Amino acid sequence: MKLNCDLGESFGAWTMGRDEDVMPLIDMANVACGFHASDPTIMHRTVELAVSHNVVIGAHPAYLDLHGFGRRSIPHTAEQVRALIWYQVGALQGICRAHGATVQYVKPHGALNNDMMRDDDLLQSVMDAIATYDRRLSLMMPVTTRYEAHQSMADERGLSLILEAFADRAYDDEGQLVSRREPNAVHHDPDKIVRQAVGFAEYDGVESHSGQWLTLPATSLCVHGDNEQSLAAVRSIRDALGTRRA
Amino acid sequence: MKLNCDLGESFGAWTMGRDEDVMPLIDMANVACGFHASDPTIMHRTVELAVSHNVVIGAHPAYLDLHGFGRRSIPHTAEQVRALIWYQVGALQGICRAHGATVQYVKPHGALNNDMMRDDDLLQSVMDAIATYDRRLSLMMPVTTRYEAHQSMADERGLSLILEAFADRAYDDEGQLVSRREPNAVHHDPDKIVRQAVGFAEYDGVESHSGQWLTLPATSLCVHGDNEQSLAAVRSIRDALGTRRA
Amino acid sequence: MKLNCDLGESFGAWTMGRDEDVMPLIDMANVACGFHASDPTIMHRTVELAVSHNVVIGAHPAYLDLHGFGRRSIPHTAEQVRALIWYQVGALQGICRAHGATVQYVKPHGALNNDMMRDDDLLQSVMDAIATYDRRLSLMMPVTTRYEAHQSMADERGLSLILEAFADRAYDDEGQLVSRREPNAVHHDPDKIVRQAVGFAEYDGVESHSGQWLTLPATSLCVHGDNEQSLAAVRSIRDALGTRRA
Amino acid sequence: MKLNCDLGESFGAWTMGRDEDVMPLIDMANVACGFHASDPTIMHRTVELAVSHNVVIGAHPAYLDLHGFGRRSIPHTAEQVRALIWYQVGALQGICRAHGATVQYVKPHGALNNDMMRDDDLLQSVMDAIATYDRRLSLMMPVTTRYEAHQSMADERGLSLILEAFADRAYDDEGQLVSRREPNAVHHDPDKIVRQAVGFAEYDGVESHSGQWLTLPATSLCVHGDNEQSLAAVRSIRDALGTRRA
Repeated sequence: MKLNCDLGESFGAWTMGRDEDVMPLIDMANVACGFHASDPTIMHRTVELAVSHNVVIGAHPAYLDLHGFGRRSIPHTAEQVRALIWYQVGALQGICRAHGATVQYVKPHGALNNDMMRDDDLLQSVMDAIATYDRRLSLMMPVTTRYEAHQSMADERGLSLILEAFADRAYDDEGQLVSRREPNAVHHDPDKIVRQAVGFAEYDGVESHSGQWLTLPATSLCVHGDNEQSLAAVRSIRDALGTRRA
Repeated sequence: MKLNCDLGESFGAWTMGRDEDVMPLIDMANVACGFHASDPTIMHRTVELAVSHNVVIGAHPAYLDLHGFGRRSIPHTAEQVRALIWYQVGALQGICRAHGATVQYVKPHGALNNDMMRDDDLLQSVMDAIATYDRRLSLMMPVTTRYEAHQSMADERGLSLILEAFADRAYDDEGQLVSRREPNAVHHDPDKIVRQAVGFAEYDGVESHSGQWLTLPATSLCVHGDNEQSLAAVRSIRDALGTRRA
Repeated sequence: MKLNCDLGESFGAWTMGRDEDVMPLIDMANVACGFHASDPTIMHRTVELAVSHNVVIGAHPAYLDLHGFGRRSIPHTAEQVRALIWYQVGALQGICRAHGATVQYVKPHGALNNDMMRDDDLLQSVMDAIATYDRRLSLMMPVTTRYEAHQSMADERGLSLILEAFADRAYDDEGQLVSRREPNAVHHDPDKIVRQAVGFAEYDGVESHSGQWLTLPATSLCVHGDNEQSLAAVRSIRDALGTRRA
Repeated sequence: MKLNCDLGESFGAWTMGRDEDVMPLIDMANVACGFHASDPTIMHRTVELAVSHNVVIGAHPAYLDLHGFGRRSIPHTAEQVRALIWYQVGALQGICRAHGATVQYVKPHGALNNDMMRDDDLLQSVMDAIATYDRRLSLMMPVTTRYEAHQSMADERGLSLILEAFADRAYDDEGQLVSRREPNAVHHDPDKIVRQAVGFAEYDGVESHSGQWLTLPATSLCVHGDNEQSLAAVRSIRDALGTRRA
């Protein structure tokens, strides 16, 4: 069970996240590519930091929307989605080359991620984009109860998937994250967070908010490096999984 | 003597240049990378067009300045210049991968190009950026009377240069283009344009505006596809050089 | 019956539309405010041109989306919609002040316009924005069969409406424009265009695509200045309405 | 002696500055207008906050450069400078209208401010822009030993000036701020900061870094709300000047 984290989300003079503190704690860095956050210089420093901690680098492409942090759904044609993924993955790969590193997976960000989970045509465009770019890159996407259908779509294109889960978010009975607008959507109790992480790691699943057991074979957990509290959660998960990084 | 042209300079709903008309006439396409013009979808279509005409693809990176079309000098540190080149070359390479193509050279655009010709530190940053990215990429830069010094700087980094000249611009005695603000900076007489092209191709030089012969060993001529007149000039140059493309 | 036209839609180095040709032919100029097109310098020149032809100036605010020309629906809260309208109307008014002119109405652009016609909450946010800014400004919006409901919503806020129709677009039985994706959505026959203009001007309505008469009391017709053909249509409409401008 | 502060410099999802803490302590708020920082919604909230504390509102226009926070000098023509000031002042005024407030002065930001202090032509363009917009708006600019020349330029246009000084920055013998790249450019000793504030307020001047007395009749001091330390400095200055706001 690998830990991944969204980072490199500062922009120009504005800082976001505690990348230097969280990087030593994670296995995989989802690096912003300039469309929802970041700029070339910040990407360069983020890749440098990831390389120095032997963290695997993934691209975190988004709709072009700095004002909305990539969280607003913006209609795109299939051609536009493919082109924006090629562009952003390539841009990050350009930065990586200069550091002797390589982008190893793609995790769509924000509204692009949400939209593809609701719309199989869009998901297929995302997969097509990665497959035409380089089949050696995996797609990181949320694990849901539809994971077998998603795996079939990936298999058709010769793509591998990284199925991602959350230790600090409640799941509904369809294996979707409960919306943040609902009560109890986010776990704040450290014990509960650790228990959910262990559940994914050892039992390939999670108990839904209604108490139903869901089989969700995640291979990566998404953690956060925003503040002291989330950093503490990452350390607890690391300890519990017995996978403290060297 | 290869013909190169700046293209892919449309943006969103706005069209610039007659790319479909000029692409069959040129050898090398300097493709805008989204910082002074273009967007991912336009880059995708431009690369597709270049591939269909067997035109070699180069990246045309710029300062981030859509409002000023990359023509305004904006101060950058060496780190920022390297990162912006890695980003833009990588982004175009990302688009190229999807088309089975490869970026083969880098030609800085507009103010970035002008600034590096005035400032050897900046020029070295540009060369460093390309060399760390991939030494197989050439730097396309204007040929001037300092071409031997430029070649030495490139040799130190294991980089090759493509020295570029203009058939339709007057040269001063230092081998710099006469500023467009001066009278007679741009040739409009088709015969004069063709004569200057032939001079570069066969005699490795040009007569300066004061009548002095300058040895300027260009390996590529920059042509334009803006309008009917510039397209006619490209065709005349092609004919005169006896290198009509198949 | 006044003629209005979207213009000032160039951006930086890119030109769109034939503003100098269409300005003498129209009564009201819908001036882009920098969010879907234009920049401060282009706005300044557009206002100058409008003033020189005694054309009434309206603001044409949009979602922030230069890449998509404001044609993509982007989710906004009511607070965000109000703020973006205040910002853009104010910006244009800032330019107008310098020319002794005043913004006299607001016409939402593209996706913002489409969205408010589908969503009364959004339409009310737009009206609220104008009413808090300055009740002397009118809202220009498409006339549909719901025009009385729209007028009531405006009355509640003390706002006046300018109801806009199109001479060159087919209407469905609900008084909505037939989508451009449908056949025969756009009229190309000059006689048909003029006839429809006269219908709106003299009989307060239009025949729908199914042949039904719709009462649509438009007070302004939207015309286009993109190319020679659309300019010819504007001249024909002017002649037919007998309202050639001095 | 009024205290002014740059604020409203957050952007989208990124926060900068402690506006809510500093607003009760100042007299004049220099509000970012979206070109170097801020967006319409942040401007709306900033104006609302200023109004609730009876703080006078000024526009803080900048070169368009979100990536560089308006700190990079970008060449502009006089026409472009005028248009960007009209646009930004107007945009802020649009937001202010909705809150029953009015922009009362203009303080150019960052590189635009630095450039106008080095280039009288640019300074005159800035003054022209304000004078054509509305002569009731003052220009806030740094006080230097050239303040009488600056006052004459303003008088020619019927403009009033607000001359601004810094309590925490060293001055050279020409009354320019010592560059931050020099040692001892910024005062950190609270006593020294308060002493310098009192010097400006009571004796119309400051001791330069070489110990020379400079007459600099400032009417406003620029303070900062970035962090706890700068907030403490503002409180100390307030106490010393005996002008605690109600």
